Amino acid sequence: MITKQLKKYKPLSFVDVKINDSFWAKRIEVNREQTIPFQYEQCKATGRIDAFKLDWKPGMEPVPHIFWESDVAKWIEAASYSLATHPDAELDALLNEVIDLIAGAQQPDGYLNVYFTIVEPEKRWTDLRDAHELYCAGHLIEAGIAHFKATGKRTLFDVICKFADYIDTVFGLEEGKKRGYCGHQEIELALVKLYRVTGNENYLRLSQYFIDERGKQPHYFDLEKKIQPGFFDPFMNSHQDKNAYNQSHKPVREQDKVVGHAVRALYMYSAMADLAGELGDESLLQACERLWDNLHNKNMYITGGIGSTRANEGFTFDYDLPNETAYGETCAAVAVVFWNHRLLQLDCDGKYADALERALYNGVISGISLDGKKFFYENPLASLGNVHRRDWFGCACCPPNVARLLASLGEYVYSQNDHEIATHLYVEGSGKFNIQSQEVVLHQKTNYPWDGEITFNFEVGTPEKIGLKLRIPDWCQDALLEVNGENVEIADKLDKGYVTIEKEWTNDDTVKLILAMPAQRFYSNPKVRQNINHIAIQKGPVVYCLESTDNIEPLQKISICRDSGFVEEYIPELLDGVVKITGKGMVMDDNDWDNKLYKPVKPDASPFTFTAVPYYSWDNREPGEMRVWIPEMG
Amino acid sequence: MITKQLKKYKPLSFVDVKINDSFWAKRIEVNREQTIPFQYEQCKATGRIDAFKLDWKPGMEPVPHIFWESDVAKWIEAASYSLATHPDAELDALLNEVIDLIAGAQQPDGYLNVYFTIVEPEKRWTDLRDAHELYCAGHLIEAGIAHFKATGKRTLFDVICKFADYIDTVFGLEEGKKRGYCGHQEIELALVKLYRVTGNENYLRLSQYFIDERGKQPHYFDLEKKIQPGFFDPFMNSHQDKNAYNQSHKPVREQDKVVGHAVRALYMYSAMADLAGELGDESLLQACERLWDNLHNKNMYITGGIGSTRANEGFTFDYDLPNETAYGETCAAVAVVFWNHRLLQLDCDGKYADALERALYNGVISGISLDGKKFFYENPLASLGNVHRRDWFGCACCPPNVARLLASLGEYVYSQNDHEIATHLYVEGSGKFNIQSQEVVLHQKTNYPWDGEITFNFEVGTPEKIGLKLRIPDWCQDALLEVNGENVEIADKLDKGYVTIEKEWTNDDTVKLILAMPAQRFYSNPKVRQNINHIAIQKGPVVYCLESTDNIEPLQKISICRDSGFVEEYIPELLDGVVKITGKGMVMDDNDWDNKLYKPVKPDASPFTFTAVPYYSWDNREPGEMRVWIPEMG
Repeated sequence: MITKQLKKYKPLSFVDVKINDSFWAKRIEVNREQTIPFQYEQCKATGRIDAFKLDWKPGMEPVPHIFWESDVAKWIEAASYSLATHPDAELDALLNEVIDLIAGAQQPDGYLNVYFTIVEPEKRWTDLRDAHELYCAGHLIEAGIAHFKATGKRTLFDVICKFADYIDTVFGLEEGKKRGYCGHQEIELALVKLYRVTGNENYLRLSQYFIDERGKQPHYFDLEKKIQPGFFDPFMNSHQDKNAYNQSHKPVREQDKVVGHAVRALYMYSAMADLAGELGDESLLQACERLWDNLHNKNMYITGGIGSTRANEGFTFDYDLPNETAYGETCAAVAVVFWNHRLLQLDCDGKYADALERALYNGVISGISLDGKKFFYENPLASLGNVHRRDWFGCACCPPNVARLLASLGEYVYSQNDHEIATHLYVEGSGKFNIQSQEVVLHQKTNYPWDGEITFNFEVGTPEKIGLKLRIPDWCQDALLEVNGENVEIADKLDKGYVTIEKEWTNDDTVKLILAMPAQRFYSNPKVRQNINHIAIQKGPVVYCLESTDNIEPLQKISICRDSGFVEEYIPELLDGVVKITGKGMVMDDNDWDNKLYKPVKPDASPFTFTAVPYYSWDNREPGEMRVWIPEMG
Repeated sequence: MITKQLKKYKPLSFVDVKINDSFWAKRIEVNREQTIPFQYEQCKATGRIDAFKLDWKPGMEPVPHIFWESDVAKWIEAASYSLATHPDAELDALLNEVIDLIAGAQQPDGYLNVYFTIVEPEKRWTDLRDAHELYCAGHLIEAGIAHFKATGKRTLFDVICKFADYIDTVFGLEEGKKRGYCGHQEIELALVKLYRVTGNENYLRLSQYFIDERGKQPHYFDLEKKIQPGFFDPFMNSHQDKNAYNQSHKPVREQDKVVGHAVRALYMYSAMADLAGELGDESLLQACERLWDNLHNKNMYITGGIGSTRANEGFTFDYDLPNETAYGETCAAVAVVFWNHRLLQLDCDGKYADALERALYNGVISGISLDGKKFFYENPLASLGNVHRRDWFGCACCPPNVARLLASLGEYVYSQNDHEIATHLYVEGSGKFNIQSQEVVLHQKTNYPWDGEITFNFEVGTPEKIGLKLRIPDWCQDALLEVNGENVEIADKLDKGYVTIEKEWTNDDTVKLILAMPAQRFYSNPKVRQNINHIAIQKGPVVYCLESTDNIEPLQKISICRDSGFVEEYIPELLDGVVKITGKGMVMDDNDWDNKLYKPVKPDASPFTFTAVPYYSWDNREPGEMRVWIPEMG
């Protein structure tokens, strides 16, 4: 029996959150109308769906790939979330069709994996490190939960419960079970979700086993590789411990530096936060906090992107944040949202919401084009003009990851406990809470992120005392709060980035929060050698960049003057509507340089008005160069 | 019969050049006393020498490697050059011993290659692209020539002539011959050398064939690979045409951009210059000139290093000159010296000598430690402290390449024709010329490169009219010239970087050249994005760097003030005697930054006196960081 928990809040479900704003509503609509159907077509066209028919025979192309399930599963998750807020008979039928195929692929013992059923059936569970078997299982579990919660149907849910029950018979500490765990973490967090839906503690314990066992000696992956020396191992030559790639270099509670593959890492940290919350495990929370500090204070791009190199799709060393070669995988930024959202429920600390918001408005949505049909896998902070979104990828983890996040975006706006509502994100719309024994609707009116004024109103039955927690973002240097026209001193009430107004709320109450949101110049910690003497422009949570289409090429010739102000202008027809920023810069002159690489003479420079646009919106127009960090001059 | 030549000058042989200065003499002595014996020991210890015994059997370790001959051959070249200026009975005997082994490995038909004689004899000439067979042959030929010229012995010389004659029967346009050429250029320039020594035009024609055939369609390497599909091909996935790696992507006369592996490229360009000179082939010279412009004006580090990436040990794209990840292979800088030296004989243009000098004083000698026993393969322009010279390498091309260059350094100081002496480098010592039917000795007295004053005197039999060409380096902004105390107006006489004094010289004449040589701040062309707003310090030809041992760590926090002067001080006990440079800088303060990566506040900075030392001398003291390009502030 679980008796202790660390969870203090729970998120308000996205089905109870309405988003009617000018920023996200459009993206969610594009996600629903373009991205989700488009991704189905891609899955279909590439053989990912039909693979579940199990009719592949040796010699046929394409060979089902070991992580195809995860792509289809994330699409099901996205489609189910969409269905939950926007009924759509056609999509419902399509989901049934795909789910029937998946259910038909389940083996009598509950096992469900195309590759290891028809391509190499004799190798089931023999390559946990690299073959993504439990990873795919985890995504199928998340898909089954999403579909069940959206539709009430148990068609996929029963399948994944049976699969999870089977996995529980295979892995664990008990005699005769494998002492392994997956080389790509994911099932750990999926099992916690399954526990929350079913109440079946076996799932929680299995997740706990996977986390606790990881990195112990004798090392499972070493043993596994001893049996199979022929397996391809791209990381044997890496400077890092090869087990650091999948964060099994030591037990998770001993880890204090982010290492290896970024998505693997953050999925694991998310599961650790989940388990800490559900099991009251302070040691897991402490490990999360150490890793959080290391990630957010030493290894994160200003866009919320993470992963400094393509070599391991992950981390290098503290303060190493190259811009052109930044990896910043879209999935990893999505995982930054996941992990911070989980930590936010354990401690309503604004630092988690700040990080979540940073990733969301920048490194996550840069991963998808404005038309919803082109995707970045990597999100560098500078481009020489050769980086562009693509329709799809052989390894297509990122596109459906953004799709499932956008389709459930409401989930990230509010949390609650029995007497408080916490507002993490500012988005016009409403949230419907069950609190203090009644239904309470909280309305937000705002033009965030272009403007920092937000007005709140309640719809309550009987006046009720509820604490309304409002987040004061870390980027905001000047915030004003009024309740029914009366100023509330924020500084007095600020606790971990939130101000709490406790009051018996009525339908006549109005709360107004004004977050000063001028475009600001941000500097990097001098330990980040790549950004010395450079600035980035950020307005509210939105990080800006220069694109050559608005400026000149090469962009490197532009500096921003130290004394320049920033002119902000909302342009409805630009990039689906953005605030454009212009300012005073200088442009270096290379006319005299054509036949020299080096001269003892400083290059001339002349005044130049630069134009910056939001980073997330780059590469939606003419292809060209892009830079986030710009030299500051004077 | 060869009737037309483009050669205008020939180098004065290093045996006729005495070097008695405070800079090079020490390095040549270390090369002779430390490096050459040490490299023999390395060759011996690693099995490279004994491999010529041909007693390797399958299963034995180490397996002779396909380019071992080239390492031994370059060592023979270095040892022979050394012997030519410093008789040494022990070294002479050691050379005889090694040469006996090599001669014993020659096959009856003249073939000479350990790997393809005993490891895979059936594969002789089947993998020209990757197996380095002709490359090794080329180095053996250079070794044989060097030994013959140094000692007059034909022991190795006859062997390599026989080998070259055999190669001539295998390759060529004639029916029944292979239409191939080597994937690593080298034999082309070796054959020209052999022609010059023997007068045998077959060698020149064979070199010409290799150069002319290269890159023609149908492509020899494509055909070769069709026959052997299993060969490892690391460049198939590269963004460049895979044949660009070895500069066979098109016929050499159509090439105008430096591509691929840098050493391969520059060895080829050197052969092209040789052939242009010997054959009067203007089209080859024009190709050289185009490629020279592209290399020197768009793809060369300020150190004379070349090769921007380790991926292909070579070129990326114009103006891409990353510092930390610069490849700058020592061999490639040596090849910059080779190529420019050859072009200098075709046209006494200072731009060639400037480039030669730039490479020599920086990117070449950075490749060897002051004690002569540790070597850089890669020469980056910035280091985080993890880059250090090593004793030896599995692929040990660089150490003996520097050794042979240092042992023959005198070769690069002067050229002559029948009435002119050209002085390319300023080095205290003398050159002994046969000119205008008599022996003329030219003396230089100078403390170059620490001081720019050079005094010249002649030793002549009868007064003789000789043109003395003196180079005015491109880095020099203010030069004074006096002949017998009378000022000569340089500007009037300057032609392609040289001023010529024509005079009947007597032993009483004194020429004094004063090259102003203050430490200067150099800027990069703004097209080099990596160096925007940075400066490098250069004094005369010597490029400086900051090392953390003289400054702070991390070095990135240091800027140099725009208005700072430079204080120069010669410190005899520092790094074998160098001019140290100090100046006014600022150091950023990261004390307030410990828990933030990004803040809307510019980091504080405080005054700091920086210390710079010559780039070539870095990593000879405490290990630490290093940077050539430093931000300029204010």
